[in-house]
Amino acid sequence: MSKNISSQSKDYATWYTDVVVKTGLADYGPVKGTMVIKPYGFALWELIKDSFDKMIKDTGHENAYFPLFIPKSFLAKEADHIEGFAKECAVVTHTRLKSDSEKGIVVDPDSRLEEEVIVRPTSETVIWSMYKKWIQSYRDLPLLINQWANVVRWEMRTRLFLRTTEFLWQEGHTAHETYEEAQNETLLILELYRKLAEDFLAMPVHTGLKSESEKFAGAEFTYCIEAMMRDKRALQAGTSHNLGQNFAKAFDVKFQTKDNVEEYVYATSWGVSTRLVGGVIMTHGDEKGLRLPPRIAPFQVVVIPIYKTEEDMNTIKDFMNPIIKELQNKNVRVHEDWRKESPGFKFNEWEMKGAPIRLEIGLRDIQKNCATIARRDNGEKITINKIKIADEVILMLDDIQKNLFKQALKFREDSTFEVDSYDDFKKIIKETGGFVRCGWDGNKETEQAIKDETKATIRVIPFDENPKDLLCIYSGKPAKHEVIFAKAY
Amino acid sequence: MSKNISSQSKDYATWYTDVVVKTGLADYGPVKGTMVIKPYGFALWELIKDSFDKMIKDTGHENAYFPLFIPKSFLAKEADHIEGFAKECAVVTHTRLKSDSEKGIVVDPDSRLEEEVIVRPTSETVIWSMYKKWIQSYRDLPLLINQWANVVRWEMRTRLFLRTTEFLWQEGHTAHETYEEAQNETLLILELYRKLAEDFLAMPVHTGLKSESEKFAGAEFTYCIEAMMRDKRALQAGTSHNLGQNFAKAFDVKFQTKDNVEEYVYATSWGVSTRLVGGVIMTHGDEKGLRLPPRIAPFQVVVIPIYKTEEDMNTIKDFMNPIIKELQNKNVRVHEDWRKESPGFKFNEWEMKGAPIRLEIGLRDIQKNCATIARRDNGEKITINKIKIADEVILMLDDIQKNLFKQALKFREDSTFEVDSYDDFKKIIKETGGFVRCGWDGNKETEQAIKDETKATIRVIPFDENPKDLLCIYSGKPAKHEVIFAKAY
Repeated sequence: MSKNISSQSKDYATWYTDVVVKTGLADYGPVKGTMVIKPYGFALWELIKDSFDKMIKDTGHENAYFPLFIPKSFLAKEADHIEGFAKECAVVTHTRLKSDSEKGIVVDPDSRLEEEVIVRPTSETVIWSMYKKWIQSYRDLPLLINQWANVVRWEMRTRLFLRTTEFLWQEGHTAHETYEEAQNETLLILELYRKLAEDFLAMPVHTGLKSESEKFAGAEFTYCIEAMMRDKRALQAGTSHNLGQNFAKAFDVKFQTKDNVEEYVYATSWGVSTRLVGGVIMTHGDEKGLRLPPRIAPFQVVVIPIYKTEEDMNTIKDFMNPIIKELQNKNVRVHEDWRKESPGFKFNEWEMKGAPIRLEIGLRDIQKNCATIARRDNGEKITINKIKIADEVILMLDDIQKNLFKQALKFREDSTFEVDSYDDFKKIIKETGGFVRCGWDGNKETEQAIKDETKATIRVIPFDENPKDLLCIYSGKPAKHEVIFAKAY
Repeated sequence: MSKNISSQSKDYATWYTDVVVKTGLADYGPVKGTMVIKPYGFALWELIKDSFDKMIKDTGHENAYFPLFIPKSFLAKEADHIEGFAKECAVVTHTRLKSDSEKGIVVDPDSRLEEEVIVRPTSETVIWSMYKKWIQSYRDLPLLINQWANVVRWEMRTRLFLRTTEFLWQEGHTAHETYEEAQNETLLILELYRKLAEDFLAMPVHTGLKSESEKFAGAEFTYCIEAMMRDKRALQAGTSHNLGQNFAKAFDVKFQTKDNVEEYVYATSWGVSTRLVGGVIMTHGDEKGLRLPPRIAPFQVVVIPIYKTEEDMNTIKDFMNPIIKELQNKNVRVHEDWRKESPGFKFNEWEMKGAPIRLEIGLRDIQKNCATIARRDNGEKITINKIKIADEVILMLDDIQKNLFKQALKFREDSTFEVDSYDDFKKIIKETGGFVRCGWDGNKETEQAIKDETKATIRVIPFDENPKDLLCIYSGKPAKHEVIFAKAY
């Protein structure tokens, strides 16, 4: 199995695709750029989804569902928004097929729609058209709504999980009385994203602001979580936007304030997507395949029995059953692999599939009243007495979760550089790879020039920036911000 | 509030729409026939979804996700299938918009797709195109996959939850070695649907087979659960199809059997949708609005405090907090309504919104160490000592669940008729309304003639049919089946 995965160090892109396809996370769909999320990948996504769903419900948000189809005219109401999405819209123009004696099944020209509808690339416009009906007074605010949905952006260059024509995500859309309230919401969600990434995905992230040229089409400010992948490129893993009054103005959504004045409503929107699965793969994966953080691993423990006869199989079952029951009672996700394949095949497969712990059990173990626990994160194996297994597994899962985060953080720090000259900057971006932390004069032109010359972009203006005394790495002028540059997915 | 709902007995259709819109379950979307599921309606759907999701996972099914877009040619591969869906397909033809100096934002003609793609009306075709890649041998079977997704059928006459252009559903798609195994799966799922309907939605259903003319486009046999609404019309609430080898043949999906022979794979598919929410409304709703079965009610208990001063409010909070905590610890979904509106307004609103239990609490209650519990299903109120509230609430929720089912079953039985003559048949269908149980000669022509003359269709050939000695209600020939006729949604 694992021999079929390309080398991560030699060919990162092929390694990535191999891991996604060969571990059964996803497959290519028939329409260009679409993806099938297979059961193992979907179970991973469901755990990510459930973790975040709980966080937003605990902070007062409610789920709802808005239509897939948006009238073309709605999309055009916010100028920056249409500018940002016009070139990647799936457009529905007809509503029937018919049989043609020569050409077979064809689109029925008589079913042409008067106004074409767009398959949502994001839902600000359709949602704000509804908010106009729902919001009259400050009593209707805040409105804290989220939806889990599929969206479509017709992409030219796609890559499984990272950039696909259709993807799954959550999109939050909130409405507020004041700018401050909207800003607080934007930052609250960003903090939940950080928590999701770091505490559940074990993926360290920088938090901060996007530059003007990288912000969402229609936002006042876009905040993001930004992670480093194992090839030292950056992954934008989640964004939270303060939309100001832009969409309220585009859809004429006013409310009566407590002081009996009419004012436009303030808005936020925010999203994370199945792209996070790509982030998990590329943050923790190694030459052997996936390494899944226990909190989001579909199977935290995989039991691999080692036996030849049916009698031995039953002996192992009798020995393991109470242990498995105990683990399940302690909410550990256990999978028993009783397939006919050899133990060696199964070890390799579950190593490749990144199960945090393998529990290997043969007759010799049983004679000693023991089982062997193998950790995926560091390859360690210990043999341990039956009665201690459950407790040890729980401690170990916690330790694996922390260790994966620690390793990823160290990797990022080892690949983050501060530079004094643009020559050093270019050398790191082009040769070493990694994040460069440096001064920026705040000019769009500077940003564009650096992008043109090196393909590096400003990933984030981090909250912990310290621009004082810094000079812009490109222009030599006093820095307006300390920023993080990198090549990105 | 409730005064704004039309009378159920006088104008059922308007009553239905009023209930949906005014209780905040759903609203109309901007594109014709689309629906917005609002937070209260979506919470209801989430509870239905989670209940069924657990059932299918417990029986070995896994969730996955397949693409929204299907190549037009795929849909055409199964003849009955394309016949069934051709007239309601949303067709994507272009992938870009552009700015036109005269017309504003227009579809970019240069972005025309070579092959148009269809927004899935159901996913058999795209899924079986993938199964072709995934299935080689009996070792790959059974494949038990489900997805929760949105689908689109371009309908002319739409009604919130019951028939909308886009709806949410689950669709299971399984692959098997033998016909018997596929048939067992079809019936297993039908039984889970019955359980979901009766035990969770408190909605009694008939289970059985659809006639040839009512079966799914591409199926060998379609089984269904069929319920009676309060206007005595039938609602098809879920269907489970034995697809035989139809889709395997259309997509050339063969497997190597244990005997080393190549054979086409056997298939099932099955689905329930947000239509179930419409079923809940129309099974239990009354003149005052919704009555929600406790197991799927977003809020099982709504606490309504009765006070004037802030001091009194705090007294009530202190009194209620431990009770609420106890209820929550016992997994009761509690909502506290501290809005500024009057208690009377809140009583009416939560009655309309169908909360199973209202817990009303004022200072006089506190002096007696009591609270008042009001049941939505039968309007009963009791005043009860603080220490007994939690236990009483739990018993009462269980009783309400059973009572709603009992009432609905009685209503259905009171409106189900056995008839001896076609004149009586027509009289019941046209005047009385309800289900007619009678003999049918098994001919498509008979079925069509009855439909043309009365608008009644065969809803189901129930498993408990007893056609022996029966004559066909229309032709007078010996009955092949005992069937249930009704007008349907």
